[in-house]
Amino acid sequence: MENIRMHIEEAIENSPRLLEDGSNVACQGTEGSYSQEAANRIFRNPSILFFKNFEGVFSAIEKGLCRYGILPIENSTAGSVNQIYDLMKEHRFYIVRSVRVKIDHSMLVKSGTRREDISEVYSHEQALAQCEKYLDHYPGAERIICSNTAAAAKLVAESDSGGKAAIASRECGALYGLELLDRNIQDNDSNYTRFICISKELEIYPGSDRTSLMAVLPHKAGSLYAVIKEFAEAGYNLTKLESRPLPNTEFEFMFYFDFESSVYREDFIDVIERVDGLCDRMEYLGSYSEKI
Amino acid sequence: MENIRMHIEEAIENSPRLLEDGSNVACQGTEGSYSQEAANRIFRNPSILFFKNFEGVFSAIEKGLCRYGILPIENSTAGSVNQIYDLMKEHRFYIVRSVRVKIDHSMLVKSGTRREDISEVYSHEQALAQCEKYLDHYPGAERIICSNTAAAAKLVAESDSGGKAAIASRECGALYGLELLDRNIQDNDSNYTRFICISKELEIYPGSDRTSLMAVLPHKAGSLYAVIKEFAEAGYNLTKLESRPLPNTEFEFMFYFDFESSVYREDFIDVIERVDGLCDRMEYLGSYSEKI
Repeated sequence: MENIRMHIEEAIENSPRLLEDGSNVACQGTEGSYSQEAANRIFRNPSILFFKNFEGVFSAIEKGLCRYGILPIENSTAGSVNQIYDLMKEHRFYIVRSVRVKIDHSMLVKSGTRREDISEVYSHEQALAQCEKYLDHYPGAERIICSNTAAAAKLVAESDSGGKAAIASRECGALYGLELLDRNIQDNDSNYTRFICISKELEIYPGSDRTSLMAVLPHKAGSLYAVIKEFAEAGYNLTKLESRPLPNTEFEFMFYFDFESSVYREDFIDVIERVDGLCDRMEYLGSYSEKI
Repeated sequence: MENIRMHIEEAIENSPRLLEDGSNVACQGTEGSYSQEAANRIFRNPSILFFKNFEGVFSAIEKGLCRYGILPIENSTAGSVNQIYDLMKEHRFYIVRSVRVKIDHSMLVKSGTRREDISEVYSHEQALAQCEKYLDHYPGAERIICSNTAAAAKLVAESDSGGKAAIASRECGALYGLELLDRNIQDNDSNYTRFICISKELEIYPGSDRTSLMAVLPHKAGSLYAVIKEFAEAGYNLTKLESRPLPNTEFEFMFYFDFESSVYREDFIDVIERVDGLCDRMEYLGSYSEKI
């Protein structure tokens, strides 16, 4: 990576003090989605544009239609969203903020639907899996997979026939006028998704203390060890480390690293440069703070 | 972990020389699934029982209905299947073999359906995502999500109305009597899934050279570094390393490690014991060989 030092120094110096409110923000999905919740947590009053898929979000930013985009990067149950990492690399965009959204599923029905009438439950595949124990109370109900939880809520709200329920967020139920049967129905109560806010230009805001890197290491014993050693010796805590087989290779790996350090620490850019020197390729994805 | 040395030594000494053929093998899904392909690669003539979900596979082994089970542990695009790791830990089962299955999607229709008639494409959500570029040739066709690719093929085969296509394996298309329109339609040609063969008892077969561990490390700087150092100094190659936030904790992580070493190496059990000593908790998931 060329001029990484200059690039980071400039961004720390020249970025605005606050994320610009009132910008257009691109989200994937439908109104009422968890992405929308993430956008509302990061921006005070975002004007959100929804896109069908992740590529739509990237393309909206590329074309200047939106300045920022909100994307899920990792779920505590389902793991990392590799497609987002691939798109980040392809577009060379940056992470400027992140936020953790608790995934709190609710059982939602059209007003008047009784528990004993429920014969079909609509939701995203992962949401259905996350509520398996709760759904044992409805052994006869068919589970029907939708592309996302908000789409499931919309479908149930617009359906004429009775007996349908959706699993989605409470807010999403309110949006589509559905009645709340039960809330907090997921088997595991600490299910959350990390969303990132991305931008075309590198922006590093005051208080940034988390940095994300993607790296391909030389295919030899000890190369990962050497990288970890840099972080350990600097006293930087790794908050994420993940190996992923590289497409079209047999034994090469891509690594995702997240580490904690204030961007103002004297050795901050030194460590990144040294890690860069140990890698075959490295992508600096940005430094940012995370809302919890 | 108690008596890990004795447990591994006994298994190396006492395990049969070959995986027992003719045992009942539990798979998740439907006939024609990629799990079935994995079972056929590992066993010569398996009698396969299909279960609706992953828990069904574990429960079939627990009850003695099946001696082995076949499960997807990681996909080169979608990453690790965390649910399987959780179930392995809960049931204290072991990995006795693994196999890599290339995921080769085909476009399948009922005989007589013409390309220009296709208005609906059925498949698993991930398979639809993996064929996004190919599906650009069918801009008007609706994509409909099914619980797995084999279920999609079955649905199309049993449908009376025309205009439906399924994305699934070629073998699956043949099983359900569907016509092959195009094969190898995934965007990325090196998409594979690793399947593991699990068993209730620890069995370590001759030639085993890959070991899987799950570990919770002490929450202090350098604890991961210390573990990696053990592998690096022994000259053992790490083929997988992944951090995952622990449910119900804020800053604790579970790590998945896979490393390469013959089980006959003199220091093999020493290294595992030393790593165990560095962890708050460690689960030894087994040593096995992988079919490629």
